[in-house]
Amino acid sequence: MDRILRGACAFGQSGGPTAVINSSVYGVIKAAFDEPNITRVLGAAHGIRGVLGDDFYDLGKEDPYELSLLPGTPSSELGSVRYKLADPEQNDKDFVRLLEIFKKRDVRYFFCIGGNDTMDTCEKISRYTNNAGYECRVIGIPKTIDNDLFGTDHCPGFGSAAKYIATSCMEVAKDARVYDTGMITVMEIMGRHAGWLTGSAALAAKAGSGPDFIFLPEAEFDPEKFFDKIKTHYEKTGNVFVAVSEGIRDHNGKFISEYFAGMISEKDAFGHLQLGGVAVNLAAEAKRRTGAKVRGIELSLLQRCASHLSSKTDVDEAFEAGKAAVEHAVAGETGKMVAFERAGGKNDYSCKIKLIPLSEVANLEKKVPAEWITPEGDNVTEEFIDYVMPLIQGEPEHVLENSLPRYARLKKFRV
Amino acid sequence: MDRILRGACAFGQSGGPTAVINSSVYGVIKAAFDEPNITRVLGAAHGIRGVLGDDFYDLGKEDPYELSLLPGTPSSELGSVRYKLADPEQNDKDFVRLLEIFKKRDVRYFFCIGGNDTMDTCEKISRYTNNAGYECRVIGIPKTIDNDLFGTDHCPGFGSAAKYIATSCMEVAKDARVYDTGMITVMEIMGRHAGWLTGSAALAAKAGSGPDFIFLPEAEFDPEKFFDKIKTHYEKTGNVFVAVSEGIRDHNGKFISEYFAGMISEKDAFGHLQLGGVAVNLAAEAKRRTGAKVRGIELSLLQRCASHLSSKTDVDEAFEAGKAAVEHAVAGETGKMVAFERAGGKNDYSCKIKLIPLSEVANLEKKVPAEWITPEGDNVTEEFIDYVMPLIQGEPEHVLENSLPRYARLKKFRV
Repeated sequence: MDRILRGACAFGQSGGPTAVINSSVYGVIKAAFDEPNITRVLGAAHGIRGVLGDDFYDLGKEDPYELSLLPGTPSSELGSVRYKLADPEQNDKDFVRLLEIFKKRDVRYFFCIGGNDTMDTCEKISRYTNNAGYECRVIGIPKTIDNDLFGTDHCPGFGSAAKYIATSCMEVAKDARVYDTGMITVMEIMGRHAGWLTGSAALAAKAGSGPDFIFLPEAEFDPEKFFDKIKTHYEKTGNVFVAVSEGIRDHNGKFISEYFAGMISEKDAFGHLQLGGVAVNLAAEAKRRTGAKVRGIELSLLQRCASHLSSKTDVDEAFEAGKAAVEHAVAGETGKMVAFERAGGKNDYSCKIKLIPLSEVANLEKKVPAEWITPEGDNVTEEFIDYVMPLIQGEPEHVLENSLPRYARLKKFRV
Repeated sequence: MDRILRGACAFGQSGGPTAVINSSVYGVIKAAFDEPNITRVLGAAHGIRGVLGDDFYDLGKEDPYELSLLPGTPSSELGSVRYKLADPEQNDKDFVRLLEIFKKRDVRYFFCIGGNDTMDTCEKISRYTNNAGYECRVIGIPKTIDNDLFGTDHCPGFGSAAKYIATSCMEVAKDARVYDTGMITVMEIMGRHAGWLTGSAALAAKAGSGPDFIFLPEAEFDPEKFFDKIKTHYEKTGNVFVAVSEGIRDHNGKFISEYFAGMISEKDAFGHLQLGGVAVNLAAEAKRRTGAKVRGIELSLLQRCASHLSSKTDVDEAFEAGKAAVEHAVAGETGKMVAFERAGGKNDYSCKIKLIPLSEVANLEKKVPAEWITPEGDNVTEEFIDYVMPLIQGEPEHVLENSLPRYARLKKFRV
C-alpha cells in the first residue's frame, strides 16, 4: 500500500458551490506542494469537463498570496460542473478519453471535491483506472451545504451555510416583529430532500430571535394543518415566523413547490408571468386566511456562498479534508472518501478524519433522523441543535479591502 | 435660546427598521443620562402610538450592559409604527392627547428617529406644542436605508445596507458564474423611489465581483432595451448578472412590479397562486428570450437588518446623531433635524453634524442625481461609488455568543 508513486496530481470541483469549497482546494494545493513525489498540481477547469477537455490550470505558477486567499473566497474558483459519467461497463467513451488525458499529463493522483454525484464519479474513475491497470490514486473530498452525504458526521460547507441561515433568521425575526400591527413571515431555505439547512433556523430561536415553526422535507407537509397552526399562533401573538424547506412535500410525496411551478399564460405587457416560490405562495395563502400582512423570503443563492459569515470550524475542516486526501493518497490509499468522525458532545466537540470506501457512500442520502423532528413535525429537537451548534463556531480572519471581501485573484495559467 | 429646561425626555422609533437605528437610541440614552436637567428617559413603545397611548418604557431601569448592546442589535428595539399625524390645523385630536401626555409625564424633550414621515410628525408636534405655549424641544433624528432624506449628505442606516448589498452581490456574482453552461441572474433591491441602495451594487463590481448592469428608479426602464442588452451580453459572455431596483418604472411611470402584482385565480390545491416579484419575472422572461438558466433573487428584509455586516462608520454616525439631538435640545434647539455635512473626498472622508429646520426637510425626497447615472441608464458612475464607499467603511466589534449575535435583551419596564 505504501509504494512510492510519482506523478502529477489533478483535481476538480463539482456540483453546487459553497462558502468553503475553496478552502478544500487550498488544502489540496498546500499538501501537494509539500509532497516531493507530486510533480505538478493541476486544477481542472469545471471539474470532470476540464479533465475530459484536457483543460487544466497549473497551480504551481500562482502567486502564493493569492492562493492563501482561497479559504475566504466563496463559490468554486476553478469552476464547477454537473456532469454524471456513464457506468464504464455500459459506456466507456468518457473513461477511454480520461485515461488518455491521465497518461498524457502523467496524472497519478486524482481528487474531486463534491457531493453525492461526485463520489459516484470518483468511484467509477477509481474502478476504471484500476481495471485498466493504470495506477492512479483517487480520493473524494466531501462538500455540500445540504449535509446529506452518507458515512460522514457532517460535510464541509454545511456549517457555514447553517451559520448564515441562523444569523439571517435572527435578524429577520427582529425585523418582522417590529410593528404592532401583526405580520406573518415565511422563509424558504434550501434542501430538496434533507432538512439539515432548514432545521438550522432553530439555532436562531435558541439564541432568542428565530422562527416559531420549522418544516422539513422529512416530515409530511399538510397544508391545512400548516395554515391552522399559523392562524392560531397569529391570533394568539399577532406575529408568526415560519421557516420552510424548499423540499416540503404533501402526503402524496408531491413537492409543494410543484403546485406553484410553471408559467401562467395570461397576456400582458410581458406576455407571461412567473409564479413565486414556496415562501411567497404560502405567505399569500396565509394572508387570505388571516388578513395579516405577510412576507415571503427566499434565501436563494445567498445561503450557500456567504463567506463573510463562514464558520471557522467549517473553513478549517474543509482545509483539513483537502490536505488529508493528498496525504492519504501519497501514503497509498485509493477509492476512498474523506469523512469526519465526531468525538465529544456539544461542549467538547472535536472531529477526526477517517477514510471510507467510495462504494459505500456514492448515491446514498443522509436525512435528518425522525427522532430529531418534533412529533408534530413543526420543529427540530434539542438533539438537532446540539448536533449543529459546534459546526458553526468560530470566525475566520476576513481579509478585506475597503471593507469589502478581498477574494483570491488567480491568473489561471493553462497547461 | 439656552434657557435651562428641566424635565423628562421621551423618544420613539418610526418607519422601517435598519441595522443601526438602535445605535441612535443608544446615543439618545447615553447623552440623556449625562444631562442633569433630563429627569427621566422614556422610550415610547411603537413610536407615536406609544406616546398617544401613554405607553413608555423607563430606560433608566435597564441594565447598562444590555443597553450597550443596542448598537449591534438590528431592527427597532422599542417597536416601530407607520402612523401619519393629521395636520393640527385640520384635526387636533391626536395633538390634544399628546399634549395631555407630555404634561402628565413632564416631557420637555421629544426625539423621533425616522425618515420622511417622521420628520413631518416632528415638525407638527414642534409647531403644535409651541403654539400651545408648552415648552418642549423637538428634534428629529434621521434614519432610512433608502438614503432619500433631504438636507443631509446621507442617512444613518444607508451605509450598512449598502455594505450588505455590495458584499452579497460579490458573493452571488461568484456563485452565479461557477458553471460553464451560462446563467442569467437578476437581483432585486429595495428603493421604491430612489436608487441609492440598488446603485450600491456597483461597489461589488468595483471590487471585482459584481453585476454587469444596474437599473435605478430614476432612469426610465424600457423592457425591450433591457432584454436586448441582456441577450447581447449573454451571447457574448455566457453570463449576465443584473441588479434592479424594486421601483423601476416604464415610460408611463408605471412600476414594472405592477405588471406582476396581484393574484391569478386559477384553481388548484391551494385555490390561488401568487405571482413572483420583479426579479423572478424579469429572470423568467430573460429565460424565454435566451434559453439560459436563470435565477431571480430578492434581497427582501435581509438587506435592512443585517447588523452582522454593518458599517462602523454608520454605527458610529447613528450614535452621534442620537447624542447630538439630545445635546442640542438641552442647549436650546428645537424644530430641527440632525443632518450630516460631508467634508473631504473619497480618501479623506469626514463628516460633521449640523441642524436644519424640520420644515425644510419634511416630505421631500432626495434622488440619485441624473449625472451619477450612465447615459444608457444601465449603471452608476464613479462619482456615485466615491460617494458611497466611505459610508460602508469599518467593522464594529460584534458581540457574539456561540458564534451568533448577542442582541440587547431589554426588560422594558413600563412607566
